[in-house]
Amino acid sequence: MAGDDGEAVRNKQVIFRDYVSGFPKETDMEVRESAMKLRLPEGSNGILVKNLYLSCDPYMRNRMKKLDVPSYRDSFQPGSPVTGYGVARVLESGHPNFKKGDLLWGFTGWEEYSLITAPETCFKIAHADVPLSYYTGLLGMPGMTAYAGFFKVCSPKKGETVFISAASGAVGQLVGQFAKLFGCYVVGSAGSKEKVDLLKNKFEFDDAFNYKEEPDLDAALKRCLPEGIDIYFENVGGKMLDAVLLNMKIHGRIAVCGMISQYNLEQPEGVHNLMNMVLKRVRMEGFTVFDYYHLYPEFLEMVLPQIKEGKIVYVEDTAEGLENAPAALVGLFSGRNVGKQVVVVSHE
Amino acid sequence: MAGDDGEAVRNKQVIFRDYVSGFPKETDMEVRESAMKLRLPEGSNGILVKNLYLSCDPYMRNRMKKLDVPSYRDSFQPGSPVTGYGVARVLESGHPNFKKGDLLWGFTGWEEYSLITAPETCFKIAHADVPLSYYTGLLGMPGMTAYAGFFKVCSPKKGETVFISAASGAVGQLVGQFAKLFGCYVVGSAGSKEKVDLLKNKFEFDDAFNYKEEPDLDAALKRCLPEGIDIYFENVGGKMLDAVLLNMKIHGRIAVCGMISQYNLEQPEGVHNLMNMVLKRVRMEGFTVFDYYHLYPEFLEMVLPQIKEGKIVYVEDTAEGLENAPAALVGLFSGRNVGKQVVVVSHE
Repeated sequence: MAGDDGEAVRNKQVIFRDYVSGFPKETDMEVRESAMKLRLPEGSNGILVKNLYLSCDPYMRNRMKKLDVPSYRDSFQPGSPVTGYGVARVLESGHPNFKKGDLLWGFTGWEEYSLITAPETCFKIAHADVPLSYYTGLLGMPGMTAYAGFFKVCSPKKGETVFISAASGAVGQLVGQFAKLFGCYVVGSAGSKEKVDLLKNKFEFDDAFNYKEEPDLDAALKRCLPEGIDIYFENVGGKMLDAVLLNMKIHGRIAVCGMISQYNLEQPEGVHNLMNMVLKRVRMEGFTVFDYYHLYPEFLEMVLPQIKEGKIVYVEDTAEGLENAPAALVGLFSGRNVGKQVVVVSHE
Repeated sequence: MAGDDGEAVRNKQVIFRDYVSGFPKETDMEVRESAMKLRLPEGSNGILVKNLYLSCDPYMRNRMKKLDVPSYRDSFQPGSPVTGYGVARVLESGHPNFKKGDLLWGFTGWEEYSLITAPETCFKIAHADVPLSYYTGLLGMPGMTAYAGFFKVCSPKKGETVFISAASGAVGQLVGQFAKLFGCYVVGSAGSKEKVDLLKNKFEFDDAFNYKEEPDLDAALKRCLPEGIDIYFENVGGKMLDAVLLNMKIHGRIAVCGMISQYNLEQPEGVHNLMNMVLKRVRMEGFTVFDYYHLYPEFLEMVLPQIKEGKIVYVEDTAEGLENAPAALVGLFSGRNVGKQVVVVSHE
């Protein structure tokens, strides 16, 4: 460990510059070095951590805006480090939940060392016999999102048809695998041949298509799912949602996890086919993982054995070092990443 | 009763001419006289009825189109009578559920006399101590729609805020009264001062506004419901839905009953604010009354005493005679009707 008690160490940070409109750019962030004393402030019940892995997630786009209304997460603060999910090791603890040396995942800063002031929102990592970076993805927020979204929001039944957009992403690849293991027929869309190959060959989806090569999304869905869609796991919004609405089956369900295709538009696209919700009696439900974290133990109980038995696989796209973090985050919105985008701050 | 056994009687009919695009016009239908023998065909298990009251309902617009996909009701047949809900008296029965003289409500033709070939879909009227026309509205399909939509789809809680569009219509006026009796704060929108007065003074809504006089629907909703909307009962779609999405509370619910503002457009308007469903964790559910008719006895048990005690009132807009039926139906789509639109074929 660098720095003795009281001695200042270098703390490299990714600073959020200012609110963003349109597509975010690398230059909306800058990497700076500051100094930090590796000691918990007197009387603090926070924890001091060394960050190991950071998570790049689509919902972070919303936090680059000045929000008019409170959302489930505050905006980034211009001039302060980006914040988000990460995996970290405890250097010093003022909180009864954690002790020095513990591993955790939760909300932290995009920097080498962070003072976490609300450690009760972090999860202690009890199972370190899997890659620790998985706690930014498969075993972290995206994993819980896939679990809650599919099993709790979609109310799946064996044999139903499931369609997933952004299907090779951090959440989508898991929804598809959960749905296959559960006994559903699973189709996904993604934005490159490489990603479609992953869906079909690595994640064993029943079918998949590259939405960028389909002039008619409605026709693509009818080709892959001629009998219609029972469950749509929505990650993209816009034109894809409109095409899906034409293909929903009676009493179908749509879990709205996100709408990444819309986040960088000044005015979101209009969705025209909502009347199909009445004709087909469709339920569409927006959800966030925050309402489901109490299910984390039951999720781990299901998924840890599946990982060890090789029934669930997980693809990560890894950026090495905080210097590469801005590009990694920005790349999410052009689909540059293949699989879950992780930033490695330190391997130990 | 006119006509002896075997003798042909006049049967005035409202004939559907051809499929309609854009706003329907009176001339899309024509009133004709034909002759009909008032005798059930040999061996028929149908029933022969005299129609008393006919119901004009927004869903009928969809049936004026040639449908590409099967919907919950077939298209009208060009050259044949319009069909829809009505109240009728049985003249002759080949079905064990009905006998001569019974009153019923259910699917019938827009004509003086009809042969109903699927009488098992009709409900026998056991309570004739209320206006019989109520069985086209308050005690018929619209009443069941309001009951199922509000109590079963919206999952209301006492003290919640409820917003209803097209609130003085056949369904809206009941949803509002059910919600008030249940202990909710209720606001409605309608398209004239007269209708807004009805909402406030007759149906005792807490507040109401005329959407045609509001340049900014978002502002109107914020004025009437400054803390937001827990439940939206959706009858209109389009711009109103977009404004509502900006005002939903966390874990709000939207029951989509219909989208009358969209039915006559070549291309439905785009809805832009769906991402609010994620930010606010909103559930939006399309439904049709057909999935809930098994609840009709429990509905009657609730509503009949409320009618008799004067806790529920019902406003009808009555057109006299089949000659006036085309104008009555067409008027729904310009909001000409004040309250539930009924056509009287015969008072006895």
